[in-house]
Amino acid sequence: MSSNAAPARIAIVMGSKSDWATMQFTAEILTSLNVPFHTEVVSAHRTPDKLFSFAEQAADQGFQVIIAGAGGAAHLPGMIAAKTLVPVLGVPVQSAALSGLDSLYSIVQMPRGIPVGTLAIGKAGAANAALLAAQILALHDAELATRMQNWRQAQTDEVLSHPDPREEA
Amino acid sequence: MSSNAAPARIAIVMGSKSDWATMQFTAEILTSLNVPFHTEVVSAHRTPDKLFSFAEQAADQGFQVIIAGAGGAAHLPGMIAAKTLVPVLGVPVQSAALSGLDSLYSIVQMPRGIPVGTLAIGKAGAANAALLAAQILALHDAELATRMQNWRQAQTDEVLSHPDPREEA
Amino acid sequence: MSSNAAPARIAIVMGSKSDWATMQFTAEILTSLNVPFHTEVVSAHRTPDKLFSFAEQAADQGFQVIIAGAGGAAHLPGMIAAKTLVPVLGVPVQSAALSGLDSLYSIVQMPRGIPVGTLAIGKAGAANAALLAAQILALHDAELATRMQNWRQAQTDEVLSHPDPREEA
Amino acid sequence: MSSNAAPARIAIVMGSKSDWATMQFTAEILTSLNVPFHTEVVSAHRTPDKLFSFAEQAADQGFQVIIAGAGGAAHLPGMIAAKTLVPVLGVPVQSAALSGLDSLYSIVQMPRGIPVGTLAIGKAGAANAALLAAQILALHDAELATRMQNWRQAQTDEVLSHPDPREEA
Amino acid sequence: MSSNAAPARIAIVMGSKSDWATMQFTAEILTSLNVPFHTEVVSAHRTPDKLFSFAEQAADQGFQVIIAGAGGAAHLPGMIAAKTLVPVLGVPVQSAALSGLDSLYSIVQMPRGIPVGTLAIGKAGAANAALLAAQILALHDAELATRMQNWRQAQTDEVLSHPDPREEA
Amino acid sequence: MSSNAAPARIAIVMGSKSDWATMQFTAEILTSLNVPFHTEVVSAHRTPDKLFSFAEQAADQGFQVIIAGAGGAAHLPGMIAAKTLVPVLGVPVQSAALSGLDSLYSIVQMPRGIPVGTLAIGKAGAANAALLAAQILALHDAELATRMQNWRQAQTDEVLSHPDPREEA
Amino acid sequence: MSSNAAPARIAIVMGSKSDWATMQFTAEILTSLNVPFHTEVVSAHRTPDKLFSFAEQAADQGFQVIIAGAGGAAHLPGMIAAKTLVPVLGVPVQSAALSGLDSLYSIVQMPRGIPVGTLAIGKAGAANAALLAAQILALHDAELATRMQNWRQAQTDEVLSHPDPREEA
Amino acid sequence: MSSNAAPARIAIVMGSKSDWATMQFTAEILTSLNVPFHTEVVSAHRTPDKLFSFAEQAADQGFQVIIAGAGGAAHLPGMIAAKTLVPVLGVPVQSAALSGLDSLYSIVQMPRGIPVGTLAIGKAGAANAALLAAQILALHDAELATRMQNWRQAQTDEVLSHPDPREEA
Repeated sequence: MSSNAAPARIAIVMGSKSDWATMQFTAEILTSLNVPFHTEVVSAHRTPDKLFSFAEQAADQGFQVIIAGAGGAAHLPGMIAAKTLVPVLGVPVQSAALSGLDSLYSIVQMPRGIPVGTLAIGKAGAANAALLAAQILALHDAELATRMQNWRQAQTDEVLSHPDPREEA
Repeated sequence: MSSNAAPARIAIVMGSKSDWATMQFTAEILTSLNVPFHTEVVSAHRTPDKLFSFAEQAADQGFQVIIAGAGGAAHLPGMIAAKTLVPVLGVPVQSAALSGLDSLYSIVQMPRGIPVGTLAIGKAGAANAALLAAQILALHDAELATRMQNWRQAQTDEVLSHPDPREEA
Repeated sequence: MSSNAAPARIAIVMGSKSDWATMQFTAEILTSLNVPFHTEVVSAHRTPDKLFSFAEQAADQGFQVIIAGAGGAAHLPGMIAAKTLVPVLGVPVQSAALSGLDSLYSIVQMPRGIPVGTLAIGKAGAANAALLAAQILALHDAELATRMQNWRQAQTDEVLSHPDPREEA
Repeated sequence: MSSNAAPARIAIVMGSKSDWATMQFTAEILTSLNVPFHTEVVSAHRTPDKLFSFAEQAADQGFQVIIAGAGGAAHLPGMIAAKTLVPVLGVPVQSAALSGLDSLYSIVQMPRGIPVGTLAIGKAGAANAALLAAQILALHDAELATRMQNWRQAQTDEVLSHPDPREEA
Repeated sequence: MSSNAAPARIAIVMGSKSDWATMQFTAEILTSLNVPFHTEVVSAHRTPDKLFSFAEQAADQGFQVIIAGAGGAAHLPGMIAAKTLVPVLGVPVQSAALSGLDSLYSIVQMPRGIPVGTLAIGKAGAANAALLAAQILALHDAELATRMQNWRQAQTDEVLSHPDPREEA
Repeated sequence: MSSNAAPARIAIVMGSKSDWATMQFTAEILTSLNVPFHTEVVSAHRTPDKLFSFAEQAADQGFQVIIAGAGGAAHLPGMIAAKTLVPVLGVPVQSAALSGLDSLYSIVQMPRGIPVGTLAIGKAGAANAALLAAQILALHDAELATRMQNWRQAQTDEVLSHPDPREEA
Repeated sequence: MSSNAAPARIAIVMGSKSDWATMQFTAEILTSLNVPFHTEVVSAHRTPDKLFSFAEQAADQGFQVIIAGAGGAAHLPGMIAAKTLVPVLGVPVQSAALSGLDSLYSIVQMPRGIPVGTLAIGKAGAANAALLAAQILALHDAELATRMQNWRQAQTDEVLSHPDPREEA
Repeated sequence: MSSNAAPARIAIVMGSKSDWATMQFTAEILTSLNVPFHTEVVSAHRTPDKLFSFAEQAADQGFQVIIAGAGGAAHLPGMIAAKTLVPVLGVPVQSAALSGLDSLYSIVQMPRGIPVGTLAIGKAGAANAALLAAQILALHDAELATRMQNWRQAQTDEVLSHPDPREEA
């Protein structure tokens, strides 16, 4: 399921196929930055053994950042983080009843000892997880650093070039 | 760590020693009902492998109900439930910043497929987990059923015997 | 209103006919597990006497678990629990203004002495109430235990067999 | 437990003796208005039968308003209201973990058909329940209406006479 | 704007014409109970002087209960209550961003001294305000008391006659 | 982007073009009051340097009030306020997951030292920001003060002229 | 109750003497900026007529900004704003049960038509109300503008001069 | 203010000296892991220019991770992130009125484009920010990776060695 020929340095996992509606925004950003990634459904509750084996092998697989999206009682990011020293970023997926507040609390309120770097609820968080992961990789990848700078500059330029909110899109 | 000579039919686990301040109320009720229990610290995040082996062996150990207390991003009850068919009851421990609302959401908002029967935040929930566990055991233990009836009657009588809220305790 | 020829061991009650949209997921799971159940509308506020007589007779009717769904100021699960020693599981139905947060608090925050095992808000909670009830029955029903294991294995296999979130459903 | 020689027209009930710390402010106001009242501990969960018999007899006892205080999953006001046509006012007692938000939701979010007039969380609500009850009685009690007017005027005068917030009390 | 030939004993006021979508359920119940009422738009913020004159004349107009609905920073019920001894019931109208939680807090959290009996957010609360108002009038109106009993019995019978949630409506 | 020939005394800025759906209600009110204004997209996060230069030049540009709308982690109003002594009013834009509660907290909970006058979430807040800004200008603009009085009187008259909520619009 | 010989241009009002514990921080800042102010207890609920007369006379008294602090169902700022065109700033006082969230919602969620510029809950908000009021006055008071610049520069310098968080205070 | 002879690869910044009570737990962990760090007070609101220059120079200073703690309307982490491509981790400091919920929302709910990896509210989050930063550095520092493994193993061993929650500490 790796999306590029180059070995994936980032893994995108999610608790359910339905989370792809959110996590595709992670994939979209990584693709645009030309960062190879792997994506897989890993359910903390329905496939706990797979979760453990995934986390145990993550470092050996060459993953340098794991991005985990989950909703409701979202245990996936925290349990992966408990089983690996690869940095884990968590994306709270917007849930039906509580709009992702349950997802957010379940991911961000980790106890001392096992960290999960948490992004915003939903699509914005999914996109930002990709950006933060790329920034981490860029610490030791000058070409990616340049692509990141270009990406961000383009983002700034896009805003600057349309200063009037009333103009037609 | 079993508290009685008879084999423990209930396990009380918690994510941290500090949770004992809450979970002792579970133990207190079970003791008063003469229900043997086992108690142990099992941290989802700091001892994930122990969590899995505990859950995998729970049925063979003879546990018929597992009561799990945890606070913050409380993953312990749900992850145990993912690894066993022994019924799991969850107690949200009151947390520092969010008063246990994070604990509650992390425990109760389990996705379809893996249930955790959740009790109230804090001491009341800890005591009620014991009572609910005992009610489950009492379905096939007539003597315990009688003790439960007596316990509840005594509780009712105690309220009935002091109807005036202004009397001295 | 029992749905099977065999005597129902589980009762599904709800405060209003409109709650069936949620509680049908309890019935669906129990049917798939071949667990006979009874279902009935019992309103704590509009039919309080029926609530009491239902709860008083629950044990004699042979119910071993009562699953109660209600929304808003959801008093049904707690009041049934106050009148019987049969284990009560509560399902907070999603409400109009507060998205089921009122239902959740009204069900889960029971005071010391009368427990209600609470599941998630809405459909997931309704399904999980069925699963938890079946796990309780399975403690003394080896055939059901086997069906439960199969059900859960099938759930795991279904996730494992579709690891790529991008594949078409 | 009636506090005056005259027959009590108002009943103050509460779910636990510990609620008296809040509900005494109801009693204090009624005493100052010379409105006879009755006070009693009635627990929805621990003494459900007493709750029903209390509510069934409330009209015959001459109660014209029932003030019910309770905390957490506060079912007392709503269940009394379900069993009588005497107007019920509810006071959400401040709870340990959720500061009375659970109490408030459990009392105020009653479904269509059974109303509870809800006051503020805690002491202010307890005092205001007394005032609202007295206003209801005063509709047909000219002397009480006068006392109410005087009480309120005194309250206004007290504020008017100390306009400077910096003066010593 | 009184809706009956008989003098209105209940006033239904609301902060905006748009609140009628909610408050019509108050009117509907009162009509079905044959209780004459008056209805009027009175905005605390846009017509403060009218609010004051309305409240000052309420008792003389013969109103025995005032039902006030408002949303957002809902000041109408509390400010009317500050200007009259006629009992005031408040209905929190569901608001756009905060789903009526702002309305609820603004109405129910009145400080000691000026009570507002608050009902549930939205339609259920609007209907229940009518029922509570009618219960208050029925304290001194035996015919209305009988109608109330019939109304409530019919409500109970309706639930009792359709115990099976699966039957077609 | 100034909307009038006269020099703009009020600036309306927003974090994204999509915020115009909300902030147009600010513009609408100012236009109706004949107050010239300037409007511009300034993103705290995507164009931080523009934010600083905008804020540094605001006083010299002749702006007497800055109205800033933003959603989510809404840093725009507070960061502008940190860089100028021109009064800043903040409008929390309704966000997807948390309905603007995140926007509200991010804008209103400024620490001691740098104030932002915050209005309601969404459209009402956007309109009210215009009114408050106009009230500030009107302190030294007698003609605008007159227009404001007329605007408010018209608003009052509109409510007074349609007192019956049941009449057709 | 004016604190300076010069005529007060700012009024600080609050709903209760107990609010002075919060609102004194408004007074402290204004004093340090040498801005004359008036301070008075005006209760929306206990002295509604005084509230109206205060608001009606505010402009004639020479007040250019009114700062109103209140807690719980905090109606004072909004009701003053409804009766005057003098800009009103609201300070949500921290309340007992809901920590000022009720105060915040009651003040900030004003409907379209009547604005209140709302500051943070508690002391920080009280101080910032003074700063924002002074910024408004400084638009037409060059000397005050200079004092404001000095105040802010001193604030910045104080932070800059102690960059090490570990140094002793 | 660097705490080690080796050049600091991690910067710990905070909005106020009072945040040190929280952020010292970041420093404590980094010290125990022998990771050199720099610590400084940088206030988004009181020293915005310093914030910008700090962020602009962060990469050149050799910082590979920036940990930013702030409370209330916590703009520091997001604004730093807007000005640098060095990964930023945010720690929501527990605030007075809203217990850090405002801090959390202000930090985590960043819009698409500028990420902040957010940790838990308060001390646990401060400690975990250090651990996550160290995990990021350890991707290219084998010795640190070993120290991290040892740290985590020691944490696990500590829990495993005290399985009985009832034993004395």
